Amino acid sequence: MTGSNGNTAVSDQPILPKPEGLEGVVAASTALSHVFGEEGKLVYRGYDIHELAGHATFEEVAYLLWNGRLPNRQELDALLQTLGAQRPLPSHVIDVIQALPDTAQPMDALRTGVSALGAIDSEHFDDVPDLNEAIALTAKFPGILAAFFRHRQGLDPVNPKPGHTTAQSYLHQLFGKEPDEKHWRPLEVYLTLLADHGMNASTFTSRVIASTGSDLCSAITGAIGALKGPLHGGAPSKVLDMLEAIGAADNVDPWLTNALDRGERLMGFGHRVYKAEDPRAEILRGMAAEASTPEFFALSRRTEERALAMLHERKPDRRLYTNVEFYSAAVLSAVGLPGDMFTPTFAVSRVTGWTSHVLEQVANNRLIRPQSEFVGATDKTFVAIERR
Amino acid sequence: MTGSNGNTAVSDQPILPKPEGLEGVVAASTALSHVFGEEGKLVYRGYDIHELAGHATFEEVAYLLWNGRLPNRQELDALLQTLGAQRPLPSHVIDVIQALPDTAQPMDALRTGVSALGAIDSEHFDDVPDLNEAIALTAKFPGILAAFFRHRQGLDPVNPKPGHTTAQSYLHQLFGKEPDEKHWRPLEVYLTLLADHGMNASTFTSRVIASTGSDLCSAITGAIGALKGPLHGGAPSKVLDMLEAIGAADNVDPWLTNALDRGERLMGFGHRVYKAEDPRAEILRGMAAEASTPEFFALSRRTEERALAMLHERKPDRRLYTNVEFYSAAVLSAVGLPGDMFTPTFAVSRVTGWTSHVLEQVANNRLIRPQSEFVGATDKTFVAIERR
Repeated sequence: MTGSNGNTAVSDQPILPKPEGLEGVVAASTALSHVFGEEGKLVYRGYDIHELAGHATFEEVAYLLWNGRLPNRQELDALLQTLGAQRPLPSHVIDVIQALPDTAQPMDALRTGVSALGAIDSEHFDDVPDLNEAIALTAKFPGILAAFFRHRQGLDPVNPKPGHTTAQSYLHQLFGKEPDEKHWRPLEVYLTLLADHGMNASTFTSRVIASTGSDLCSAITGAIGALKGPLHGGAPSKVLDMLEAIGAADNVDPWLTNALDRGERLMGFGHRVYKAEDPRAEILRGMAAEASTPEFFALSRRTEERALAMLHERKPDRRLYTNVEFYSAAVLSAVGLPGDMFTPTFAVSRVTGWTSHVLEQVANNRLIRPQSEFVGATDKTFVAIERR
Repeated sequence: MTGSNGNTAVSDQPILPKPEGLEGVVAASTALSHVFGEEGKLVYRGYDIHELAGHATFEEVAYLLWNGRLPNRQELDALLQTLGAQRPLPSHVIDVIQALPDTAQPMDALRTGVSALGAIDSEHFDDVPDLNEAIALTAKFPGILAAFFRHRQGLDPVNPKPGHTTAQSYLHQLFGKEPDEKHWRPLEVYLTLLADHGMNASTFTSRVIASTGSDLCSAITGAIGALKGPLHGGAPSKVLDMLEAIGAADNVDPWLTNALDRGERLMGFGHRVYKAEDPRAEILRGMAAEASTPEFFALSRRTEERALAMLHERKPDRRLYTNVEFYSAAVLSAVGLPGDMFTPTFAVSRVTGWTSHVLEQVANNRLIRPQSEFVGATDKTFVAIERR
């Protein structure tokens, strides 16, 4: 800073010490989910993720997050029916998506489509968020992404079928044909695993925005923008890039050694909170073994084992484990998705967690408005431009 | 919660106590601006707001925030030229805005337009935010809002003129004619006053999103969503509604008494941080005296005085002062803006602060990822739906 005068650093009574990146600071109470980082345990509404994965459908998990308990058959059927009825997009949202350049990133298209969805002057998506809006928004995520996925290929959007589950409807709207069970089933498990994850950056973003009294689409638009960042949700496609660059099992060691020697970060390992294996990685590994080709799974497994061994050797003091991204790549790729649709597909699941957090926030709201520590000057005197 | 079993409340080692809404928690260091709440003092980059208001142009303030010092004549001219060159919108952004329902709120249109602007696969608005992007985005805010303002009236957008300042260009693009000095000058002062304000909720939102490594448009799209909330930026139009409802000076006392008796919140008073008069309110009061009709200013002044007296009488323990919203209504109304354009016009100014904070965040980044306190159960057992 080369100001005209004055450079006294001041700090206006910070009440608490400043932990970098708010690490360890409790920003809110939640009954939705929790990451027990030391144990490598993830809980949704009382259920360990191992209790739910492969047993509960995505819609059961969504119901659980929204309502605090699992649905009975009648409640689940009613939710499936409402989701089906809410899937079709308003025509202006399709117009907005089709106005986007076909070179746009799918995350940008999703963010813009959700924002456009909020540009309605109606009982929906205005004023204080409610559960009906959460369900309607969740229902529309697959269609927004699929409309852009097809737009960039010069194809028209596909009308959703009422009887489809979320996983089925997403694949149907993307590819325009009845989805195979071998595709929708792994996608379904993937969606149950990614639905919520404590106070991560996108969830926190949605709560900060909701705390101002803003609307649901504003909160979720912000969350999508945060999830886009590679330090949060934006790296799974890079795992695929890495595995494709390695190409064959006998290239794993030389490729990884080279990358580490050049100081590059290996994709798919490490997490701010987990100091043990991410339980989702373990479940996805099993899914990948079933869903991928044997060659691709073998390459993934070999890369994982050698990367962990090399990372442990080079950074013995850091507890680095496989994270959720690593096998997401194998599972989503086996389902037929290209790399740039991985993070948007994460959002198709996480919108249930985001909306649950927004509802929890507004149920007992207080504006989230932290302080900053001011490290600038305070006593400069304005000098007219002629004398600068 | 009526789960199948288990309700043990746990708390996974919260490292620090949980202040509601992060009040008093320092979330980041900044050299950009600071609110000295006890003194009623606002500083931008070393300059008290009284040093700048009415002396520095909006573009000088923008340069100051972005670069840490005031520009010389050559630097200011270069910035004005770049802003002029960057004002025209990409055609797809105009298409997106014109696809929105004409009943949309201008804040929804701005959020959607900025998000659409980010849906470009180019050097702009992708990867790590930089100053050129900050300038380009700031240049385009008036045009995005003006395009929607005209779209909802069935009018085509107006091409910006290169020689216009931000205040002039905004009015020109809104109304399609050369702006009067009696309109652009108060708007100019308004824009300098609202440019930054410490770690408020929208600024914090932009920093959280940027901390994930996401792009500038994602961060600013989120900030717009937060500013839309009435607990943050969304109330100035309600001040206008209140003044219009009061209507005449002899109705001030009965109207306010009635509102307070019904437990209603009076708009334009009180702030989380200020425990003295907001210095911006003082400056805007002076602007309103010049820009408004004498009748409207007299009504505003009478309402302010009586409201403060009644609030003091009814809540003697709370230090309630006039906030920035109160006279924003008079000034922006005098400039020719309808109430629903007040908060978007706030954003035309604040985008300089948001982008400055994003640049400050990414210059020394750490993911902003707080903790949550888990207050749910952890030990429920999954029961198949047939047995629920």
